[in-house]
Amino acid sequence: MIVVVGKELPAYVEAAAGTQVRFVDSLDDAADVFGEMEAVVGHVSPDVLAKAPKLRWAHSPSAGVDSDLTPEMRASSVVLTSSAGNGGIPLAEHSMLLMLMLSRDVPRWMRAQAEHRWDHYRHAELAGRTVGIYGLGNSGIDLAQKAKAFHMRTLGVRRRPDQPSPSVDELCDLDQLLAESDFVVVTVPRTPTTAGVFDRDAFARMKSSAYFICISRGGIADDEALLEALQTGQIAGAGLDAHGVEPLPPESPFWSLPNVIVTPHNGATSDGNLRRSREIVAENIRRFVAGEPLHNVVDKIHGY
Amino acid sequence: MIVVVGKELPAYVEAAAGTQVRFVDSLDDAADVFGEMEAVVGHVSPDVLAKAPKLRWAHSPSAGVDSDLTPEMRASSVVLTSSAGNGGIPLAEHSMLLMLMLSRDVPRWMRAQAEHRWDHYRHAELAGRTVGIYGLGNSGIDLAQKAKAFHMRTLGVRRRPDQPSPSVDELCDLDQLLAESDFVVVTVPRTPTTAGVFDRDAFARMKSSAYFICISRGGIADDEALLEALQTGQIAGAGLDAHGVEPLPPESPFWSLPNVIVTPHNGATSDGNLRRSREIVAENIRRFVAGEPLHNVVDKIHGY
Repeated sequence: MIVVVGKELPAYVEAAAGTQVRFVDSLDDAADVFGEMEAVVGHVSPDVLAKAPKLRWAHSPSAGVDSDLTPEMRASSVVLTSSAGNGGIPLAEHSMLLMLMLSRDVPRWMRAQAEHRWDHYRHAELAGRTVGIYGLGNSGIDLAQKAKAFHMRTLGVRRRPDQPSPSVDELCDLDQLLAESDFVVVTVPRTPTTAGVFDRDAFARMKSSAYFICISRGGIADDEALLEALQTGQIAGAGLDAHGVEPLPPESPFWSLPNVIVTPHNGATSDGNLRRSREIVAENIRRFVAGEPLHNVVDKIHGY
Repeated sequence: MIVVVGKELPAYVEAAAGTQVRFVDSLDDAADVFGEMEAVVGHVSPDVLAKAPKLRWAHSPSAGVDSDLTPEMRASSVVLTSSAGNGGIPLAEHSMLLMLMLSRDVPRWMRAQAEHRWDHYRHAELAGRTVGIYGLGNSGIDLAQKAKAFHMRTLGVRRRPDQPSPSVDELCDLDQLLAESDFVVVTVPRTPTTAGVFDRDAFARMKSSAYFICISRGGIADDEALLEALQTGQIAGAGLDAHGVEPLPPESPFWSLPNVIVTPHNGATSDGNLRRSREIVAENIRRFVAGEPLHNVVDKIHGY
């Protein structure tokens, strides 16, 4: 039996080709069938894992599986797959939006509009600037392609430099990325390797004219170090869609910094994301039932 | 003698290769030399034109020369050149910014940020949508390239379909552009042919889910018809950098429509624009003195 957390979708039933699919609002509602459950589409807690001896496959509805990868999940033989790829395009769109908003000071125009005020000023172009992309997965690669159409120079850091990186002018290390980028964009998953990489020392090595953008996960930047860099002018500003604590609490100082644009981890919450997520799940259900290798299998060592 | 309105730039003096260059704050300050003036970099009024019998060349600092092309200028033998090409890239950037802001409802996020409120919602992607570009000059062509990197379908209307239109999926007429576009972007100069093209009938033929964006000149849309289309929901919204009256007066209703983003004809006011404008002028001064054909000669019949 396959248990799906979410609303009933005929495409999933069809993909299951006769294998029973049960749709539930939450896994609590499937407690009576934990013993027969072979696959779950949803977040599987250690508690559920312990009660589902036949479970072989768990599909996370998230692209980043840092919260799914509990020690129990890591230790189990259950194959974990992710929805990676659902959000690459909208996250790259969001990155370009934040870069444009920061370089043109959109908040200033919006204040002027609210006051019916014609506030004409000179601003920067993206053309000719350097974007440094920290992580060349789905969103990073798509962002590089967009940045090239904006006549930017593209630098990229990636764990597997042997993989193709189209539209990336130069693969480099973090040192070079920090030193040369006008926009540093964080697109990596949060893993033990990436958590806290952007610390005080990293921000100190960025240009004072550079912007920091995070669209993947909070916690990759040390929030205190980021806050200090923004408040002291060590960097020019930031566009933050992913945050160390979410929802960002009302008392967080990031909301009111004049050089920061905050969006509520909303960059990939798009119509296209929903459509692609469902396509990924349907295809993996088909493969699971047919005994074919699944898409987006998570490497439990590297965490994505 | 070449008279330049603007601050003294050694690059112009060098380009003039010995021919005298006089820099003035306004042409009024050059009244004593009108009789010897062979070339002007600046806006030439009918009055100045009448007083400068030796004038052979006038270079407008604008990309669009609608205000330079007075009846007197049209009737004269003075060669008029423009700064077309200085703003293509930043205008294309601005178009993408406005499309992203409209499709993601950035004003909503900005209100939420001001109130420290986590306002998470689903929005549209640009990917898969159709952008219809009305005019395939420098900004239109660059916009098409950017839109393709955003996985959009690109339609374009152009006066000279024999010219290359890279990144444009389909050249079409205005009817098709209006019917099929999710974003209609106006990039044409204002000429007798384009003025008022976007009238009540044109807006009625757009999708009710579509957005209207104008980055080139006001007056190509009939402002009353546009206002009505926005107020009645005939179209979904607008991003307006160019306006029928500029500066847009404080009492204009466009400022406060919830589905309109107003910027103060500021899309191309970039650092790169200034640099390219100066390069265009320096090169034309060099050519003028050397007796070579000038760049960006305005077709006085078609108006650009």
